[in-house]
Amino acid sequence: MPTFGVLTGGGDCPGLNAVIRAIVRRALADGHRLIGFHGGWIGIREDDAVELTLENTAGIVTRGGTILGTSRFDPMADGEPGLEALRATLRRRDVDALAVIGGDGTLGAARELWQAGFPLVTIPKTIDNDVAGTDFSVGFQTAVQIATEAIDRLHTTAESHNRVMVVEVMGRRAGWIAASAGLASGADMILVPERPFRIEEVCEQLRARHRHGRRFSIVVVAEGAVSQDGAIGLPGLGDRHPAGDTAAGVLTSHPRSLAAPSGIAFLLRDQIEALTGFDTKVTVLGHVQRGGTPVAFDRILASRFGVAAAEAMLAGRLGVMMALRGSRVIAVDLEEVLAHTKPLDPELYRTASVFFG
Amino acid sequence: MPTFGVLTGGGDCPGLNAVIRAIVRRALADGHRLIGFHGGWIGIREDDAVELTLENTAGIVTRGGTILGTSRFDPMADGEPGLEALRATLRRRDVDALAVIGGDGTLGAARELWQAGFPLVTIPKTIDNDVAGTDFSVGFQTAVQIATEAIDRLHTTAESHNRVMVVEVMGRRAGWIAASAGLASGADMILVPERPFRIEEVCEQLRARHRHGRRFSIVVVAEGAVSQDGAIGLPGLGDRHPAGDTAAGVLTSHPRSLAAPSGIAFLLRDQIEALTGFDTKVTVLGHVQRGGTPVAFDRILASRFGVAAAEAMLAGRLGVMMALRGSRVIAVDLEEVLAHTKPLDPELYRTASVFFG
Amino acid sequence: MPTFGVLTGGGDCPGLNAVIRAIVRRALADGHRLIGFHGGWIGIREDDAVELTLENTAGIVTRGGTILGTSRFDPMADGEPGLEALRATLRRRDVDALAVIGGDGTLGAARELWQAGFPLVTIPKTIDNDVAGTDFSVGFQTAVQIATEAIDRLHTTAESHNRVMVVEVMGRRAGWIAASAGLASGADMILVPERPFRIEEVCEQLRARHRHGRRFSIVVVAEGAVSQDGAIGLPGLGDRHPAGDTAAGVLTSHPRSLAAPSGIAFLLRDQIEALTGFDTKVTVLGHVQRGGTPVAFDRILASRFGVAAAEAMLAGRLGVMMALRGSRVIAVDLEEVLAHTKPLDPELYRTASVFFG
Amino acid sequence: MPTFGVLTGGGDCPGLNAVIRAIVRRALADGHRLIGFHGGWIGIREDDAVELTLENTAGIVTRGGTILGTSRFDPMADGEPGLEALRATLRRRDVDALAVIGGDGTLGAARELWQAGFPLVTIPKTIDNDVAGTDFSVGFQTAVQIATEAIDRLHTTAESHNRVMVVEVMGRRAGWIAASAGLASGADMILVPERPFRIEEVCEQLRARHRHGRRFSIVVVAEGAVSQDGAIGLPGLGDRHPAGDTAAGVLTSHPRSLAAPSGIAFLLRDQIEALTGFDTKVTVLGHVQRGGTPVAFDRILASRFGVAAAEAMLAGRLGVMMALRGSRVIAVDLEEVLAHTKPLDPELYRTASVFFG
Repeated sequence: MPTFGVLTGGGDCPGLNAVIRAIVRRALADGHRLIGFHGGWIGIREDDAVELTLENTAGIVTRGGTILGTSRFDPMADGEPGLEALRATLRRRDVDALAVIGGDGTLGAARELWQAGFPLVTIPKTIDNDVAGTDFSVGFQTAVQIATEAIDRLHTTAESHNRVMVVEVMGRRAGWIAASAGLASGADMILVPERPFRIEEVCEQLRARHRHGRRFSIVVVAEGAVSQDGAIGLPGLGDRHPAGDTAAGVLTSHPRSLAAPSGIAFLLRDQIEALTGFDTKVTVLGHVQRGGTPVAFDRILASRFGVAAAEAMLAGRLGVMMALRGSRVIAVDLEEVLAHTKPLDPELYRTASVFFG
Repeated sequence: MPTFGVLTGGGDCPGLNAVIRAIVRRALADGHRLIGFHGGWIGIREDDAVELTLENTAGIVTRGGTILGTSRFDPMADGEPGLEALRATLRRRDVDALAVIGGDGTLGAARELWQAGFPLVTIPKTIDNDVAGTDFSVGFQTAVQIATEAIDRLHTTAESHNRVMVVEVMGRRAGWIAASAGLASGADMILVPERPFRIEEVCEQLRARHRHGRRFSIVVVAEGAVSQDGAIGLPGLGDRHPAGDTAAGVLTSHPRSLAAPSGIAFLLRDQIEALTGFDTKVTVLGHVQRGGTPVAFDRILASRFGVAAAEAMLAGRLGVMMALRGSRVIAVDLEEVLAHTKPLDPELYRTASVFFG
Repeated sequence: MPTFGVLTGGGDCPGLNAVIRAIVRRALADGHRLIGFHGGWIGIREDDAVELTLENTAGIVTRGGTILGTSRFDPMADGEPGLEALRATLRRRDVDALAVIGGDGTLGAARELWQAGFPLVTIPKTIDNDVAGTDFSVGFQTAVQIATEAIDRLHTTAESHNRVMVVEVMGRRAGWIAASAGLASGADMILVPERPFRIEEVCEQLRARHRHGRRFSIVVVAEGAVSQDGAIGLPGLGDRHPAGDTAAGVLTSHPRSLAAPSGIAFLLRDQIEALTGFDTKVTVLGHVQRGGTPVAFDRILASRFGVAAAEAMLAGRLGVMMALRGSRVIAVDLEEVLAHTKPLDPELYRTASVFFG
Repeated sequence: MPTFGVLTGGGDCPGLNAVIRAIVRRALADGHRLIGFHGGWIGIREDDAVELTLENTAGIVTRGGTILGTSRFDPMADGEPGLEALRATLRRRDVDALAVIGGDGTLGAARELWQAGFPLVTIPKTIDNDVAGTDFSVGFQTAVQIATEAIDRLHTTAESHNRVMVVEVMGRRAGWIAASAGLASGADMILVPERPFRIEEVCEQLRARHRHGRRFSIVVVAEGAVSQDGAIGLPGLGDRHPAGDTAAGVLTSHPRSLAAPSGIAFLLRDQIEALTGFDTKVTVLGHVQRGGTPVAFDRILASRFGVAAAEAMLAGRLGVMMALRGSRVIAVDLEEVLAHTKPLDPELYRTASVFFG
């Protein structure tokens, strides 16, 4: 029986299970067998896999995480011998094509494997939304919704005058979550990696707001935001993951920067309090943004990507990434989409800035 | 001082306030004055208006409904004398351009007024998503999310074997909400106006599911779904609103069809119980889908549309509708977009149907 | 090894899995074996059971429904031979004590079995909150929260003057959900089974509100509400379930009353429209109130009840129901608590009525 | 016309507006006039007040914060001259009785004022739930629900083995939120102020879990938790607010402890990573727990407290605090309830600990 493989790589992200279920449902309907590899690429390397069926993929669409597990294992790390181990598993299990679900780290590895002869298609997922070639990746809208709901709850502070709320959201290299959630919730200032800030300007804008009678201000900051002089922030944050996903939250080898032991939010708080005297409170959402049930938008996107990926494999259209373009899902060549990551749209930031001040 | 007017027309819809606020913020920043007309077109007719300011539009982004009120009043109904009354108000108040927020009824009237010389731009909103020319209208994603969360809660029925859950969602002429929420929540069957159903087939599919060991089935039905023979459903539902919005829930002149006193869901229940003997439960979400705080996606879309509308007015680019195309917001000519309503994408329905059975 | 059995009976209800998990965790810690019977009492009758372990009860606290299944099977229905079949299973499996989770139907059967010599403890669950002897039953707060959120969304109707929203919530014999959700969401009128209404009064109050300038009214109605003359409502609704739970939604033998094919909400709508002319919209929440993830309150209550039930079994304190009294969980004798169901607290209704009109 | 005053003191808390609205509705029904003082006690001192009406209290039940504003101003701070200023305002405005809504700081001041002859009643609110004499205070259940939903989202981490999630919740002197949300969400460890921890034990329990095959652990920590040796935590946190509410988040005079620049969560993370090598992620919920729409439970409690407070004032029953006892709301003498704060119930912690490990 023709067989397809499925794996999820990189960081956690809402909607992975919806992709898996969609691939399985669509491919089973055409009489194919489905094999899920555990823990990303390592599952192929170690031949750690499970058959995917209607039964073991039922009811998973609402669940966060991935039933297959994931990891940041780099299949290229061991060179040709490593690749040969992968090939051996795929041969042994008669895998005709592989559906690879991941962020830019995983997709980059997939492109190299495709060039090395591996038959595969890919599905973009990342809460950071920085995969180029698609309007949205799976997981992003859920992260934005979670962050928006949290910021909404900060919009009632009757307690003090001259209070500042700093909310740190994910985004090491890209400010999509910060700009989107900030725009959705009416943030008074948004700091993103793409636009290094000057702390004096930040504080002056806060002072100006409060001079104009505002009781409090909400500052949304992406974890990868950094000041122009590099003194505030985690400057090297975005480029430490040669094999990792953009969405990475793991710095195993350099666990903590000395300069930023608790992230950008607390650094900002200290500076704002020192420079303005405003009482400043911090919220760090952290992995709350990566887990739990996906919003409807992500479930629909994930299901469409999964069905399209299965149909691409069935049609033998390989070496592609599923992509949302407007209201259509299409398959684009891997070569075309992975040349760069997708930075925050300046227009979106500009729109958000209409509501500053 | 140059002055812009704003009005909201047609049915309630989450995100209207976010559009209003965005227009106000953007236009105020360029030194314009903003006038909000109450109750849609009738507010111009009666010169019932309020000045919109930073203060009275602060904090409204999370609120459902519209601070301006709305109605289904048709500005064309009284012919030229009626138009003259509108013109008189706009002259008296020195309104340079009008931002009209509405569904296809309101947008259709706007087009006629534009052709009659009224300076205006439009912003599409409808939970039904059936305005052509834009990927999404304001309000749709919120309705889908609400319906999805409700259906999620039905996915645990430990109580009985052979139970059927029928969930009626909005959509008189278009099945966008039904197909989207059904796909997102893993519905086992979705009935939409675009695809008249045969009750015998519906029941046979339910029986087949239960023969294959499923304990229960979830059927999502758009309020405008109808059987092929016209015996079940409210056949004329979609075409009774010459001047109304697609999203219309009001049938003032024909308050209740004798054949369908309680909507399609109860009709379906009676047929399913009679033909299969399966215990069948009904949920009718009703206006719950139209109210309350918008999801982040709709707030962002609304804010982008509002800013773009203000900028179009500032630039003198009138006679246009704001539209989402992929990840860009553009202005398209009113003439181009209003020739037809946008029926449910067959591809989306086909994707949803992968998960049936 | 000493062995405890667990079963869930009656209708679906959020929090059942949290009770099961708590019993298992607590009893395992003391070295006991746990057996879960499938489908309520029928699982003992048919000896259909599963061993409950840390593994198969992990991660279930957030899930609606019950991993054991449930039914409305009456263990007393077949008299002494039926009981003997139950005893045989418990003997064969060496069950020392049984934890019975259910509403008043299940608890009533449990009391009879206790009197017939069955060693058992009970945990009250019902979204209807009508089990006497405990401040709250598992599931009620979740149902109230769901209904409250739905009604919140109806509180923005900018569209029409003189609109009425009728929301039907569960409660065949008791108005706890209606009164609680109505109070929480600021309903303008609440109709409950404990207080038969007069339709003329209902309409007069609606007219009075609208005369005083209100644009719309929200009426919350329990499914078992009935007019004083019996003409509107499903009068016999509450007393048709000799062996069933109060929370019952199933009328298998009399599937539909001729007089009320679609429930009280549509009957009310027709009367209100006929008598007042106000445009009236209906929401029927249905089983949405019974499913999905429980609120924190119910998870905590369920966990406390489960731990207390396990400890009662470990201590040999049988024939009891776990009960919340203030902030304490205690075990009360089954005989004391089951003499009657608990009607809606008149004080709660009176408080809610402060906000009418 | 007889007149009642209303004020809110201390920190933000969901449900304050529901209390205000209930007092207003109930007292207006009996023909009283209502005056709301701005910013807590300072509003009386400065005679900064607004008349409260049906109109300006409509629709506020879902809103976080307080329409009256609040502060931590201590009315006793200026001694007798300060009190005389308060008395002058109340005389000038003919205030017959005052409804004081606050946490233990505000309630303590209220008791002193009552003893000094001020006619008043009080309503307990605090997300920390540490006001003695009542089963629950307004705001607590909402904070628990918010924290529970956040922790739920952390329960899917497919990414890494040996990961620890540390979630910091509010609670400077009391562990009610930590224990309740931890129990509700199945936390693997809960650290509270009432039970100083040993970091070696914490780490050993984490290691033991992971040795038994768990992939990750969730540690919920109250902001006021502290190690037995005082080396980790903010030891003096709880006793720095002589005039402040327990719920206080403000340390104006000692803005930051040198030893704990970013709160307990980051201190814990550093220790756990150093001692176990497990990758550890932090979420700090912060003021997200204090804001936004209250859950149904809190709205009902707030409404019942407000109605009862108005009725106590109408009946001349002063010097009391509204209290929930089981399912009843009663008025208890201020003297009786304020002798101490209410520490976390050890039984609740013990129940939560059943699910550790």
